[in-house]
Amino acid sequence: MAEHGKAKRGIPPKSDFNAWYPAIVEIAELVDKRYPIKGMDVWRPYGWKAMRCIDALTHREMERTDHEEVCFPLLIPEDLLEKENRLVSLLKRAREEGVDPSELRVEEEEAGFKKEVYWVKHAGENELDVPMFLRPTSETAMYTMFPLWIRSHVDLPLKTYQIVNTFRYETKQTRSFIRVREIHFFEAHTAHVDEDCASRQIEQDLEIVGHLMDSMGLPVIISKRPVWDTFPGAWYTIAIDVIMPNGRTLQVASCHHYKDQWAKAFDITYQDESGNTQYCHQTTYGMSERLLGAVVGMHGDDNGLIFPPPIAPIQVVLMPVAAHKSDAVIPAVDAAASALREAGFRVKIDSRDLRPGQKYWDWEIKGVPLRLEVGPRDVENGNAFAARRTGGKEPIPLDNIVEGVHNQLEMVQTELNQRSRIHVDDCIIRLENLEQEILDGHIYEVAFDGSDADAETLEKTTGLAILGDAMEPFPDDQQCIVTGKTTRRRQHIARMY
Amino acid sequence: MAEHGKAKRGIPPKSDFNAWYPAIVEIAELVDKRYPIKGMDVWRPYGWKAMRCIDALTHREMERTDHEEVCFPLLIPEDLLEKENRLVSLLKRAREEGVDPSELRVEEEEAGFKKEVYWVKHAGENELDVPMFLRPTSETAMYTMFPLWIRSHVDLPLKTYQIVNTFRYETKQTRSFIRVREIHFFEAHTAHVDEDCASRQIEQDLEIVGHLMDSMGLPVIISKRPVWDTFPGAWYTIAIDVIMPNGRTLQVASCHHYKDQWAKAFDITYQDESGNTQYCHQTTYGMSERLLGAVVGMHGDDNGLIFPPPIAPIQVVLMPVAAHKSDAVIPAVDAAASALREAGFRVKIDSRDLRPGQKYWDWEIKGVPLRLEVGPRDVENGNAFAARRTGGKEPIPLDNIVEGVHNQLEMVQTELNQRSRIHVDDCIIRLENLEQEILDGHIYEVAFDGSDADAETLEKTTGLAILGDAMEPFPDDQQCIVTGKTTRRRQHIARMY
Repeated sequence: MAEHGKAKRGIPPKSDFNAWYPAIVEIAELVDKRYPIKGMDVWRPYGWKAMRCIDALTHREMERTDHEEVCFPLLIPEDLLEKENRLVSLLKRAREEGVDPSELRVEEEEAGFKKEVYWVKHAGENELDVPMFLRPTSETAMYTMFPLWIRSHVDLPLKTYQIVNTFRYETKQTRSFIRVREIHFFEAHTAHVDEDCASRQIEQDLEIVGHLMDSMGLPVIISKRPVWDTFPGAWYTIAIDVIMPNGRTLQVASCHHYKDQWAKAFDITYQDESGNTQYCHQTTYGMSERLLGAVVGMHGDDNGLIFPPPIAPIQVVLMPVAAHKSDAVIPAVDAAASALREAGFRVKIDSRDLRPGQKYWDWEIKGVPLRLEVGPRDVENGNAFAARRTGGKEPIPLDNIVEGVHNQLEMVQTELNQRSRIHVDDCIIRLENLEQEILDGHIYEVAFDGSDADAETLEKTTGLAILGDAMEPFPDDQQCIVTGKTTRRRQHIARMY
Repeated sequence: MAEHGKAKRGIPPKSDFNAWYPAIVEIAELVDKRYPIKGMDVWRPYGWKAMRCIDALTHREMERTDHEEVCFPLLIPEDLLEKENRLVSLLKRAREEGVDPSELRVEEEEAGFKKEVYWVKHAGENELDVPMFLRPTSETAMYTMFPLWIRSHVDLPLKTYQIVNTFRYETKQTRSFIRVREIHFFEAHTAHVDEDCASRQIEQDLEIVGHLMDSMGLPVIISKRPVWDTFPGAWYTIAIDVIMPNGRTLQVASCHHYKDQWAKAFDITYQDESGNTQYCHQTTYGMSERLLGAVVGMHGDDNGLIFPPPIAPIQVVLMPVAAHKSDAVIPAVDAAASALREAGFRVKIDSRDLRPGQKYWDWEIKGVPLRLEVGPRDVENGNAFAARRTGGKEPIPLDNIVEGVHNQLEMVQTELNQRSRIHVDDCIIRLENLEQEILDGHIYEVAFDGSDADAETLEKTTGLAILGDAMEPFPDDQQCIVTGKTTRRRQHIARMY
């Protein structure tokens, strides 16, 4: 009977990840995919609340690190994009030819985002004089304004961010949160006096990434992407990849160090202490709703979602049991809920007239980290019965419910972080030589220090993609897997989403 | 010297409102209008923070009243708009002909938003098969999904809301917050079992409006708009107009009762308790960034903005004075700031190396409600010196700074609410007869119960527009100003923004 009730919800087993993922995001009511535009889902209340909890963590980190929140227009005039395109094609050519960008003439080559954007060329019944496009990201918009805001070194560092909707005209298959056409997007943009200051910003970004990934219990690999996979406008790109359950990696965030390249294209200068005009050095840090996709994918199981407490839309669900048998049950539940809400927990009382099993499955599917049951005997004993979504049940005292719940949620978080670490250990295998068999569902660690041609060999032989240099190199000398030369460069290869 | 420092900021006197308003929103750094698209300003950190504080009040009210937050795609396919247009033109005709909408054939007439929207007809290098447009508001998008979410009476009431960017292709002159092309927009959409339930929702909306307007200290007139000024898709429209300093009214919010008209067009039905299929009855409630425009316009003065404490980005600015003369000053300021932050106040310490006058003007322009100065003698006396932006200064004890600041901010709020009431009293004059002279900067209260033709007479004679029926009719019989017949209908006429 219980199995029947569960089966009715229609969740495929998680081992069939490609069927499980799209099913669970709808069954748990995170999104509705029936909106009549492909790749643009409707955020339902439960999913949107989860995303807003993730945003709240981001806001907190941004405030802690003195970033200021702005909000730029969605629309960008076409002529600004052309400035970006010129820069990007210049940098791309310089990189390909291995020369300094300043040696090259600026070409009117088409590049950048032009082929991936939605265009607004008409308004009402008019054709617009200057076509505009929906932002895919906001470099162009922001760097048009930065010169107006930055005059002297006292205006630096300028640290801004926004959380907005952005758009990419995706032609690949779409997937909720992971590959969508309207993206809930976070972007931080900073300007600094020099390269060193900008580099310190990247370090701070990685510290923020660390905090966020810990809060969400996500297993990540942080890599400096190889040159051919660097954002064309960047000096270098650091990417944060989550290891999904099937061993494929999902890039959820990235930081770019721009050096003074954009500043030169957009004329972002400042007067230094001696009164000389200098170009700013810039960085960006981006994340998206993919964070939620990673949380869903990483923590869910055959029974539904599991939310880490910091981002759970509902952290605790309270269920009165057999309340018709004792008048003390409902008041005890209400008192506990009040105390928990007062202490800042996100709490739901489920007093629907349904069989308990039905209710369990609902909250199990939705991934509520902690369920508290209160029946007549519990009240007599002064307890609530706590059941963690990650497993384990025990009574906790009602008269100190706040501390009890705090501890239970900590246990859930600890368990999720531990699972995440085990997943990393299970997933990452050392690749010793090119003859070694490549197993499905794994990521390989390699010593690699070869040329682009060597990289191509490595990728072709293994069928995997190079993520780039791990932040931690090997502690001692290794042999490059392709060239055999001595190196400490530690890289990962994986199937990427 | 002081006057020189102030004059340099270039704020025109508030009596010249049309010059003061656009100047102050930029000088106080709420927005930057230099973004290269007309009517699309960049929100700077200070302005965005103020808007987010207003949004926080809205979220709180929505949570209190059991609304759930959703987020719908920005883009809407053209064919859905056509459904809306058909409905709207049908209702318009029915209203014009004074018949029930069900008696009319649905015409393929063009109406609604079609002429006011931004079109997306191209993506990348492709022309799209189905053109899409940027939402001007989300009825069409939402009511396409509601039928999928509502099955039976237990799913009702469905109460949703979202805070998103919306777009109108404005052809009139733009003005920050008041008339813009990208709008920061709040919209609540609800579905109910019947007209009564929907009407009770409108009552709840007006209660929410009351709380919000009190928090912002805004003087408002709430009116049921006359038929010709009702949103074409609505059964009736209730509008909330702020009385701006120059006596013109600015509509900042509105509620629509839709009856079952949209439900019939979009097939939004439910099964009632007897298993019969019924149409839902619906309401919407909308507000926009105009709220911030109203706050700026209503409370500011010749010296800058004045923020009501509930939405002030910075509620208290702390200024150490002559800190070089005593080592006790900085620690005292830091301790006070910590205590205030702990208590949830938004606090800024201004320790810039500038002359005090310079600092005062900065925070005066930005409208921070409370300034606290702490100098060596203040520390000795155990006080901070409190100066309210609305006038008045006094010492408050440092060892109970939280209560002191709480009281000071209450005084500011009380003062703003009082000014607002006085403004209403000063502004609204009774219009006794059509011969009475119409004075600039005033709103007139009239007894009016005439036909559309009589309304035209009233509007033409006075040069003012009819806002509609006030929520409170006259307590006793009056003579209609045009027809002379007996009525209790109390209406207002004004110049509208």
